[in-house]
Amino acid sequence: MLARRLQYIGHNTLKNGNIRSVASLVPGEPKEPNVKTEVPGPETKRLSEELNKITQSGSVQLFGDYDKSIGNYFIDVDGNIFLDTFTQISSVPIGYNHPEMLKVFTDQSKLKALVNRPALGVFPGDYWPGKLKSVLLSVSPNLPNVMTMMCGSCSNENAYKALFITYRKHQRGENIDFTEEEKASCMVNKAPGAPHLSLLSFHGAFHGRTMATLATTHSKAIHKLDVPSLDWPIAHFPQYKYPLEENTRDNKAEDAKCLAEVEDLIVQYERKGVPVAGIVVEPIQSEGGDNEASPEFFQGLQNIAKKYGAGLLIDEVQTGAGATGKMWCHEHFGLETPPDIVTFSKKMLIGGFYHSLDERPQQPYRIFNTWLGDPGKIFLLEAFIKVLREQNLLEQVNKTGERLKSGIFQLEKEFPALLNSTRGRGSFLAVNASTHQLRDDILERLKKKGIISGGCGDHSIRLRPSLTFQEHHADIFLDRFRQVLKETK
Amino acid sequence: MLARRLQYIGHNTLKNGNIRSVASLVPGEPKEPNVKTEVPGPETKRLSEELNKITQSGSVQLFGDYDKSIGNYFIDVDGNIFLDTFTQISSVPIGYNHPEMLKVFTDQSKLKALVNRPALGVFPGDYWPGKLKSVLLSVSPNLPNVMTMMCGSCSNENAYKALFITYRKHQRGENIDFTEEEKASCMVNKAPGAPHLSLLSFHGAFHGRTMATLATTHSKAIHKLDVPSLDWPIAHFPQYKYPLEENTRDNKAEDAKCLAEVEDLIVQYERKGVPVAGIVVEPIQSEGGDNEASPEFFQGLQNIAKKYGAGLLIDEVQTGAGATGKMWCHEHFGLETPPDIVTFSKKMLIGGFYHSLDERPQQPYRIFNTWLGDPGKIFLLEAFIKVLREQNLLEQVNKTGERLKSGIFQLEKEFPALLNSTRGRGSFLAVNASTHQLRDDILERLKKKGIISGGCGDHSIRLRPSLTFQEHHADIFLDRFRQVLKETK
Repeated sequence: MLARRLQYIGHNTLKNGNIRSVASLVPGEPKEPNVKTEVPGPETKRLSEELNKITQSGSVQLFGDYDKSIGNYFIDVDGNIFLDTFTQISSVPIGYNHPEMLKVFTDQSKLKALVNRPALGVFPGDYWPGKLKSVLLSVSPNLPNVMTMMCGSCSNENAYKALFITYRKHQRGENIDFTEEEKASCMVNKAPGAPHLSLLSFHGAFHGRTMATLATTHSKAIHKLDVPSLDWPIAHFPQYKYPLEENTRDNKAEDAKCLAEVEDLIVQYERKGVPVAGIVVEPIQSEGGDNEASPEFFQGLQNIAKKYGAGLLIDEVQTGAGATGKMWCHEHFGLETPPDIVTFSKKMLIGGFYHSLDERPQQPYRIFNTWLGDPGKIFLLEAFIKVLREQNLLEQVNKTGERLKSGIFQLEKEFPALLNSTRGRGSFLAVNASTHQLRDDILERLKKKGIISGGCGDHSIRLRPSLTFQEHHADIFLDRFRQVLKETK
Repeated sequence: MLARRLQYIGHNTLKNGNIRSVASLVPGEPKEPNVKTEVPGPETKRLSEELNKITQSGSVQLFGDYDKSIGNYFIDVDGNIFLDTFTQISSVPIGYNHPEMLKVFTDQSKLKALVNRPALGVFPGDYWPGKLKSVLLSVSPNLPNVMTMMCGSCSNENAYKALFITYRKHQRGENIDFTEEEKASCMVNKAPGAPHLSLLSFHGAFHGRTMATLATTHSKAIHKLDVPSLDWPIAHFPQYKYPLEENTRDNKAEDAKCLAEVEDLIVQYERKGVPVAGIVVEPIQSEGGDNEASPEFFQGLQNIAKKYGAGLLIDEVQTGAGATGKMWCHEHFGLETPPDIVTFSKKMLIGGFYHSLDERPQQPYRIFNTWLGDPGKIFLLEAFIKVLREQNLLEQVNKTGERLKSGIFQLEKEFPALLNSTRGRGSFLAVNASTHQLRDDILERLKKKGIISGGCGDHSIRLRPSLTFQEHHADIFLDRFRQVLKETK
């Protein structure tokens, strides 16, 4: 263990004129960002043109050199070195080319599990129950069952089905068989077999881009335009005033107003004949602008869900896996009981959802697909969780997060016309720029200074560093962020 | 090349008393199935119980030993050796532990591409455009563009969005911007931004289990019960009489009737204010019972799609990647132009869809998600396609298919009370049992004799062997199938 810790003690960096010894959690990281070409560089431009012939690629920012990228440093095809605070839309748990991740498939059994990817619902490998238990259930938010899936959208899509199936089970009565009418009508998409049920979601939410998840997504028009949708209830998510300490009364009133609307909508949709089978919510609305809500809001939401027999699904696709300083963000909320369903993907590497026994379908083949996930990913997740534990990464996230948050708050004070509303938990942080244009401009200029960061909502800057992002990385980020803000002034 | 072929010349098998030299395309295959325990065996039972505590696992048949499974032989945790004609619901292209597949990640760059799975739509690896071109486009069904996805359902979900987006583009006019009303209304799931549009699908179809794909799936009630759906048009898929040669007039009339219904439904839904933006169809309805339709039917369908400005999506998730003796099953149909969209997954290892330039969104971020596929899978696909070409596997599929099909047809003649309607292309074959119960019984007893096979529809047995399934495997299958039928008599 000491040997392990020692090997991570790396290079020294020159910081404000002082030599500071830096223990890098991923060995071999560069000392700092280094941008040598224009951004994007000529090689990214060339590859973008090539890619654009094959697929719509207008969203591409940079082509990566994934042989060379290391730890928290993304290296592009032009040889530019970026400190990555965005980590592939929040999906790289412990940095690039982490030695523990690279080691995984040197084990021939794991390699064979990856290559012989089975239909996990029919012919799983001998390793499967054991790995579900020792890997996935070992970090479960107190829910006893888990289904694996491939990605965030399909985790939510399938979890939504669990909500509908369970709601109908409660209506029908446990162990009551389907009627012939249900069996026949569902085949032609009609009630009662395909019932009129809805899910309640929130303005500003993002749960994915497939049809059901898109019907609960309300963050950007470009995601939704031209795609048919469903008449499902949409409530307002709290919009807080910052700093929170100075606005408790207003924010409390905001909670009450939003919860009242949730309850109203449930009653209203029940009357319309489209009862609410479930409430789906992010613990922090991420794509929608890093909108937070209080523990009390979530406690109230759970009470309403229970009162009306709707399942509560907490979507931890972006917030999960440690970034908020706890394994699951909703663990910050002190809920009376676990939510009915918690969905995950991204940094978890495999998708899926934890669920209560009540949310478990009584019959097989109801929540099912060919692959049901990917065993290769569970072995990578196993390596990540091992590192998470051995290196106390949750503690690290809290330490880094504090440094980052207080640093950003300091910048907010220095540049009050440019920044406001510093917020977040752990290193899952955000700050607002005063305008949309300024936000985009800051992101662009950060990149030219060697920092990859992300936007969300209309004018927020979000930080989504890996769990191995440390204080010295935070200092580099804050330093370059300050430079950008100074140049803006 | 000769050396390569020689290394695959393997063991001898005793067949009808004669020693026959057998060139196995995957080295190291056992000579024949060997079932030593009851099926399922004690170790599968033990693991099933363990798994069932963690997840609904009623669909599990056998636990696999993927260290030992090899080529066309699935070896279970009880040491039983099965000849696999079902290949993980048709998703294993060239057999278990194929040496070319095991070799892929010995290349450090490929391993790093796998481990550093990027957000392919934002920070793709330098290898990405090249691999899309040399791997995916090299087997494209004459469509110039491709989007990658994770699985069959999400390939179809996203392809459906392309159909909607393109239909609205045609209505709106190219390069016409969205109205403010569209942008605002889509955010709350309402028209005109979230327009009233539908997709036409067929009774008996299977396109997936997420909400939009499930709305076009009509194969089994258990897939659909309790999940809300959409009022979208559903037409009848031809139901042919077999043998085809003896029933041409009836089958032709069936085609005409079904095509007329398609046209009627399109007109009807246009009048209802929910125009048909696309027609989605499998070249052979697989889960629904291996229902075939003629080239003329598909030609007629394409003409109707063109007449009404609906996109034609051919779902090759199960039929694609060579199993029908052509790379894509619809290549058997002699269509005048390629379909607008062809979706794939399963044996292709990566999901996605090929599409025309017309089906390409003009703006980025409309068909998008965090990962957009998985680079690890494209390197496995590359290895598969290399083997496909070097070993002329399409030719092999046709040879094996002929042996299998004529053998099954022979069994149909020997056991006319038990079997009927032998059909299929390449080694993508099926035969009906006279009853549902008999079908299930045959599958069960085949398994006890060391053959894994699959059912589909109400009373069909489907064969989905890998592309390295050869004549000697076919002989073993036919032999054991005959034994089962004899015992049934």
